[in-house]
Amino acid sequence: MIHLVLLSGGSGTRLWPLSNSSRSKQFLKVLRDAKGNHVSMVQRVFRQIRAVDADVDVTIATCAAQEDSIRRQVEGCYALVLEPDRRDTAPAIMLACANLALEQRADADDTVIVMPIDTYADQAYYDGIVKLDAAVQSGFSELVLLGVEPTFPSVKYGYIVPETPEGELRRVVRFTEKPEKAMARELIGNGALWNCGVFAFKLGYLTNLASKYMPVSDFRQFRDRYSELPKNSFDYEVVEKAASIGVVPYSGEWKDLGTWNTLTDEMADASAGRVVVDEPTCENVHVINETGFPMVVAGMRNAVVVATPDGILVSSKEASAGIKAQVAQAAESRPMYEQRRWGEYRVLDSSVYPDGAKALTKELVVRDGKQMSYQRHAHRSEVWTIVSGTGEVVLDGLVRQVRAGSVVYINKLQMHAARAVGSELHIIEVQQGDILVEEDIERFGDYWD
Amino acid sequence: MIHLVLLSGGSGTRLWPLSNSSRSKQFLKVLRDAKGNHVSMVQRVFRQIRAVDADVDVTIATCAAQEDSIRRQVEGCYALVLEPDRRDTAPAIMLACANLALEQRADADDTVIVMPIDTYADQAYYDGIVKLDAAVQSGFSELVLLGVEPTFPSVKYGYIVPETPEGELRRVVRFTEKPEKAMARELIGNGALWNCGVFAFKLGYLTNLASKYMPVSDFRQFRDRYSELPKNSFDYEVVEKAASIGVVPYSGEWKDLGTWNTLTDEMADASAGRVVVDEPTCENVHVINETGFPMVVAGMRNAVVVATPDGILVSSKEASAGIKAQVAQAAESRPMYEQRRWGEYRVLDSSVYPDGAKALTKELVVRDGKQMSYQRHAHRSEVWTIVSGTGEVVLDGLVRQVRAGSVVYINKLQMHAARAVGSELHIIEVQQGDILVEEDIERFGDYWD
Repeated sequence: MIHLVLLSGGSGTRLWPLSNSSRSKQFLKVLRDAKGNHVSMVQRVFRQIRAVDADVDVTIATCAAQEDSIRRQVEGCYALVLEPDRRDTAPAIMLACANLALEQRADADDTVIVMPIDTYADQAYYDGIVKLDAAVQSGFSELVLLGVEPTFPSVKYGYIVPETPEGELRRVVRFTEKPEKAMARELIGNGALWNCGVFAFKLGYLTNLASKYMPVSDFRQFRDRYSELPKNSFDYEVVEKAASIGVVPYSGEWKDLGTWNTLTDEMADASAGRVVVDEPTCENVHVINETGFPMVVAGMRNAVVVATPDGILVSSKEASAGIKAQVAQAAESRPMYEQRRWGEYRVLDSSVYPDGAKALTKELVVRDGKQMSYQRHAHRSEVWTIVSGTGEVVLDGLVRQVRAGSVVYINKLQMHAARAVGSELHIIEVQQGDILVEEDIERFGDYWD
Repeated sequence: MIHLVLLSGGSGTRLWPLSNSSRSKQFLKVLRDAKGNHVSMVQRVFRQIRAVDADVDVTIATCAAQEDSIRRQVEGCYALVLEPDRRDTAPAIMLACANLALEQRADADDTVIVMPIDTYADQAYYDGIVKLDAAVQSGFSELVLLGVEPTFPSVKYGYIVPETPEGELRRVVRFTEKPEKAMARELIGNGALWNCGVFAFKLGYLTNLASKYMPVSDFRQFRDRYSELPKNSFDYEVVEKAASIGVVPYSGEWKDLGTWNTLTDEMADASAGRVVVDEPTCENVHVINETGFPMVVAGMRNAVVVATPDGILVSSKEASAGIKAQVAQAAESRPMYEQRRWGEYRVLDSSVYPDGAKALTKELVVRDGKQMSYQRHAHRSEVWTIVSGTGEVVLDGLVRQVRAGSVVYINKLQMHAARAVGSELHIIEVQQGDILVEEDIERFGDYWD
């Protein structure tokens, strides 16, 4: 049996301000499917996986901040394993394998195939799943990787060097990380392949490795002691130490859509949101405006303009890959837009006033029939003005009907929740307090059944 | 005696989104004075005028939308004449002259000098006031204009053609509007000057002209019948019909800072507001960010980026002059930021929801000691959440103290006002109703003395 483990990686500021700590690039619906609908990388990958095997067993390894986004975008059956804190790929994969072995009771001889969830590749890439499984079960090597046939001598990728440049399954001799261009050419001449982060092995192989760090027999215990695992990559911690490694070649499109330069190449639309692009004076310009502000773009070439509640980026495509420091300097430490299981919120304003008072104004959207968890805050009060829809609000156990025009005052430490009944519920929320952060929340499950 | 009439012109979308119907370009504090302080065009012009004569008599002709901005920016003594509706320069100047004659009781033989309030010129330009007065009082001609010595064969300006290319006061033979380049060169060779919209005449000359349209002896009556005046420019209605015209030459800087291209040349700072400009990859880039959103600009050349509550403009400087239609298509019909006598407001969000409900969220800032007028709205309710400062709110005659945390619910047609006492008062206001416009307001003067 095959178990796919999909790694849903971290925040990354390379696609700021469209991605933030809760909305990673893989969830952005900027691609287009065969029918012309907008889809995210995650949705595209899931379709490709299910085209290989509709019933393939899937475990997604990610962090709590992405849970809501995944549940909103991925339908069907899958296990979700949440890291208690962000470490690196080796501990994340060990945690997923511990879950497979200890919770899902998978067999030690089953094949595990680890894949990044944000790869942009052809269907043939995912068809490789079957070949990887066959190679693992044949006992050819402890580990089997997928290797991408290089199309140019990249100095940014890792290269897998096989014993021979031919064959559907080759023995790996060594790895070379980010070689110089001349070396990259030579490697390619000798049949080297790009390492794309796809690893296959028998479940027992990895649980054995993990047990050296943590000899536990209970998944909850494993998770509780997660911080004891080394903060290392799977390549460093496992691949480099493996006794024998095989590689299955893949030839076709394979892209990291992690920069504005590469992402805009695949974007479904040249502009999205409230924007007027002066076409005659613009060339190769991509614009996304997720704010309510009207936008005009004129006289731009090879540029990307992105405005979201998190910020505004105006950059040439070329320069967009090298602005990590500038973004770190400019950006808010908190996300200004988040999707939640019950709906979404958007920060309209965040201010510190001359007298030191702080306030944060949000629009909340609760989807029809959904509810936010019953909760309280230690550091802030909230004033809710209902501006659209109908629903219910509970305040310290007292339920009242609300509709456009209703105002609810929530004191510090008062228990509260809202649900939408019969339509979407839109709320303008004004938070006040000494600390205004998402983390100041104590949740008590759902109030309504 | 000299009476200066300063024309404070209209909205203009050429500097969108920094200018709007209430904040015209002349009020933007983007210039720098000798001491390094930020000043607006209006403030710069006033200093230059008072350097000529500290006690010069000034009347400002403008519209109601600009009243608050002028009162905030212009100190000292001046008369303010507000047009009942926007027409053109001829009626606006006639109204100002009617005010001088009928309200201020100025003498018919006094000199009136009309100047635009948004000119960017050297001090010598304003020193021309004295020469113009002398020319008018000498009886040389009915009208005396100021003419700018051309520095290049512009095809955009109007040319004043004098009888002779020499002399401090020349007789005008004719005018040529926006000539072809070859013709412009020829005109300049013959001593033609640019028409800069400065007109001098005896007060009685213009009141006589105005009385042909409207033989009234009371200023209020004149203003009430303002719409009967022809919607024509002063050039068309008065200058072209004058029996004799003189021109006083001016040699020096004279600019229309009405486009991003010309304005950025004189701007005090290359960037203002919350923005990180990646200097190594940018060249000749001007950035203004008046929103709370963090902004990063990289890899741009010869570009202007402006974000305000009214919208976001990203343009090459070259293209920025030709985007009137795009701005008209994109922009909101209402201003999203306005300065008022009591403070200012900024629209945080304006939404129409799926059920048709409308809401508009604003931040109001009431300056310490100031109050908004006692008022009511026919079409909207308002929820005020006080987020900073201390003050008082009156609701249907009932006064209460407010501070951060206070919430005030204002029903449709309920009389209300707020004033700041002891500090600035910051309020988040949520408006709801079928019509959410600034015009839905009935004012009843000041509630507090």
